[in-house]
Amino acid sequence: MDGSNRIEDVITTLQAQFSERCTVNRDVRDRHGRGESWHPSAAPDAVVYPHATEEVADIVRLCAENNTPIVPFGAGTSLEGQVQAVRGGVCVDLSQMNSVVAVNAEDMDCVIQPGVMRGELNAQLRDTGLFFPIDPGAECTIGGMVATRASGTNAVRYGTMRENVLGLTVVLADGSIIKTGGRARKSAAGYDLTRLFIGSEGTLGIVTEITVRLHGIPEATAAAVVSFPSIDAAVEAVIQVIQVGVPIARIELMDDVSVDAVNRYSNLKLSVAPTLFLEFHGSPASVREQAETVEALAIEQGSASFSWSDKAEDRSQLWQARHNAYYAGLALKADSIGLVTDVCVPISRLADCIRETKEDLADCPMPAPLLGHVGDGNFHVCFIMDNDSPEQVEEAERLHSRMVARALAMGGTCTGEHGIGLGKRDLLKEEAGEGVSVMALIKNALDPANILNPGKIFKSDEPAS
Amino acid sequence: MDGSNRIEDVITTLQAQFSERCTVNRDVRDRHGRGESWHPSAAPDAVVYPHATEEVADIVRLCAENNTPIVPFGAGTSLEGQVQAVRGGVCVDLSQMNSVVAVNAEDMDCVIQPGVMRGELNAQLRDTGLFFPIDPGAECTIGGMVATRASGTNAVRYGTMRENVLGLTVVLADGSIIKTGGRARKSAAGYDLTRLFIGSEGTLGIVTEITVRLHGIPEATAAAVVSFPSIDAAVEAVIQVIQVGVPIARIELMDDVSVDAVNRYSNLKLSVAPTLFLEFHGSPASVREQAETVEALAIEQGSASFSWSDKAEDRSQLWQARHNAYYAGLALKADSIGLVTDVCVPISRLADCIRETKEDLADCPMPAPLLGHVGDGNFHVCFIMDNDSPEQVEEAERLHSRMVARALAMGGTCTGEHGIGLGKRDLLKEEAGEGVSVMALIKNALDPANILNPGKIFKSDEPAS
Repeated sequence: MDGSNRIEDVITTLQAQFSERCTVNRDVRDRHGRGESWHPSAAPDAVVYPHATEEVADIVRLCAENNTPIVPFGAGTSLEGQVQAVRGGVCVDLSQMNSVVAVNAEDMDCVIQPGVMRGELNAQLRDTGLFFPIDPGAECTIGGMVATRASGTNAVRYGTMRENVLGLTVVLADGSIIKTGGRARKSAAGYDLTRLFIGSEGTLGIVTEITVRLHGIPEATAAAVVSFPSIDAAVEAVIQVIQVGVPIARIELMDDVSVDAVNRYSNLKLSVAPTLFLEFHGSPASVREQAETVEALAIEQGSASFSWSDKAEDRSQLWQARHNAYYAGLALKADSIGLVTDVCVPISRLADCIRETKEDLADCPMPAPLLGHVGDGNFHVCFIMDNDSPEQVEEAERLHSRMVARALAMGGTCTGEHGIGLGKRDLLKEEAGEGVSVMALIKNALDPANILNPGKIFKSDEPAS
Repeated sequence: MDGSNRIEDVITTLQAQFSERCTVNRDVRDRHGRGESWHPSAAPDAVVYPHATEEVADIVRLCAENNTPIVPFGAGTSLEGQVQAVRGGVCVDLSQMNSVVAVNAEDMDCVIQPGVMRGELNAQLRDTGLFFPIDPGAECTIGGMVATRASGTNAVRYGTMRENVLGLTVVLADGSIIKTGGRARKSAAGYDLTRLFIGSEGTLGIVTEITVRLHGIPEATAAAVVSFPSIDAAVEAVIQVIQVGVPIARIELMDDVSVDAVNRYSNLKLSVAPTLFLEFHGSPASVREQAETVEALAIEQGSASFSWSDKAEDRSQLWQARHNAYYAGLALKADSIGLVTDVCVPISRLADCIRETKEDLADCPMPAPLLGHVGDGNFHVCFIMDNDSPEQVEEAERLHSRMVARALAMGGTCTGEHGIGLGKRDLLKEEAGEGVSVMALIKNALDPANILNPGKIFKSDEPAS
């Protein structure tokens, strides 16, 4: 082998094996060349739709023999350029591997293929009394959520993908297949390969089966919307809720800009003020107890309006609006694209971090709604940019890099849940320092030819150097 | 370099730098050559006591230059031969790195050196209202607990080391120093190096600083001891408690043999019958609610004696007795050694697994108390063997391998919390299959000369082959 990418040979062979499940159609390739953020598109040379682990292994073996890059693809909702085929190659679209393989209700786990959508999984689980709590804003695949170590609004209570995946089936860079973890709740059997693949963004292997933990649908649920006189007051209430140990299920902050955007997009009539969206899970008595504690803390911080609901349809409308907040932001401006920041800091620094960030945004020349999973110390500023404005991208990146520097100085991270992709490779170096060299050693060991999602997490030539 | 271990040069240099903190005293070396299990002792050539990360880095660099094996050592309580210096070399005893570096009460985390004992950490935290929940039976170091991915009686509620470590400082095989993770509650920044080092048993690096999550001491705590007419009935009660979602803090099973041993050793008067030790944490109302639910489930399973206590001194006596259960087992026979099994299965298979195991132990020629963290599906049989009986080791190993085969067939693991060490290297292959090759690739990438705790997890020549 001469080390060069023989993509034509690969496509010919894939078309023979997969017929209409392998395409070079321009529109399809373009749709697979980007996620939901501003990062420039980079279409793959072909898109293939496997139906089974063995088929994924066939594709990877073929690409390995021909030195062809491989980009795994779920629903295309990533925010840091994780699916861009920056060196061309084959996009492995896993959306047709979308079966729930087994639900083990007694053990509160289930085995699924990576293309299962998170909403679909919960729809299928409904009769079991169980649910899968992790809920990024987007309607995404569980495989994609594994790849980016996703979390969402429930993480403060139920953890992230890190805590909620028990085991994986993974196709490695040479086409071999391994199983990691298992169905036991804990294990000390060797290196934690499950956690290594979670958050590896397709750079170490392609996940083809996932065992996730499920949780009991709580006996009682109540939600509340609470507005505050200032963002400081809202954040202070959050910090106290966490510090007194209320086992809150969701505690989400929106600033006034976000609330206004959500009102317009989702046809709500919330007061345009810094606002917390809350949810409580437990027995009826425990929900009442939690809610009373939180209401008292909110009143101490000057909250005047505490609006409750335990009706399922109200809650569903509320959380749908919250999940659509990014799209609501984009809708503030015609023909816009988003640059979404994702810092996460220790809770004691959250008020400082948000206050300094808001001060820094005072002269920002574009809408910049702020919202986040504040119970975890994680928040996003969404820069809503004109689609064709390199100046706005530059300004958003300047403000973003200041946010990250601020978060790192406070002991935080540049990304709580979106991952590195193309967008944060330099920031990862700032954050992890020499740790990035260790990551690169692992990448080299598992994918020496750098065919698995090259250019993501590391710049394309870094792990191989 | 010729690749041979120049241990004499290493010792000379270490003695120059560390003077009395480096010793070749025979007794000291012997004490560092084994843990608390039956595995044959293997003393290191020297023991050195660093006081700082930089000193550990100095030791590792020196050993790397001289191809000398390095074995990190905490309190010497491991159960699978993790500290045996099977190829000689330098034992790095971290017990003098025992400072609590920082307690961040507002963020519910703290930064500690690896030699801090878990009991000592909780003693130092007492005034903060916070505690560190992970509690293996032994009085061990937090560093050792990181190394083996330890858990204990609280894991059913609070998770294991995997869930309770936020970040690490690690000295790598070339003496370089990295920091992993951070103080943010979640992060999607690249590969999860923190989880990779947790459970790596000193084979990938030496952990020199640890950031752990803390939890609020619950407002109310109640404990109970409940005996059952049969072990099946006890396990059935456990399964129901877990499946109805009681957020129980501890739920520990002892069979009649264990209860008898504990009565003798800890001077208790428990009924000699299959018994659950329980603990409930929460608000007073929530503890009462949990306890009522569990009592009803226990009565349904035929439990007649449900004995309660919310007095701190009673609870402390109870859990001290539980933590000493292994030593109580050893005390059943003079001059005995233990082989402790550690399977963990999905909760739905726990009753079958325990019943079949008990049937298999019917003709066991030595005491074999059974106990465990049954809320996680994890239990131990402790084979109490004569100190000089290869026949008993052989018989215990035969029964052990049947237990593991049974657990693996049920979707479980060969080790819930003790790790692989020397004792379970073959079992790891049965469990993880080709995954072990991936572990070996990582080991090779991070420690190409195989100087870090060689022979553990992998047989000595495996990763290098």
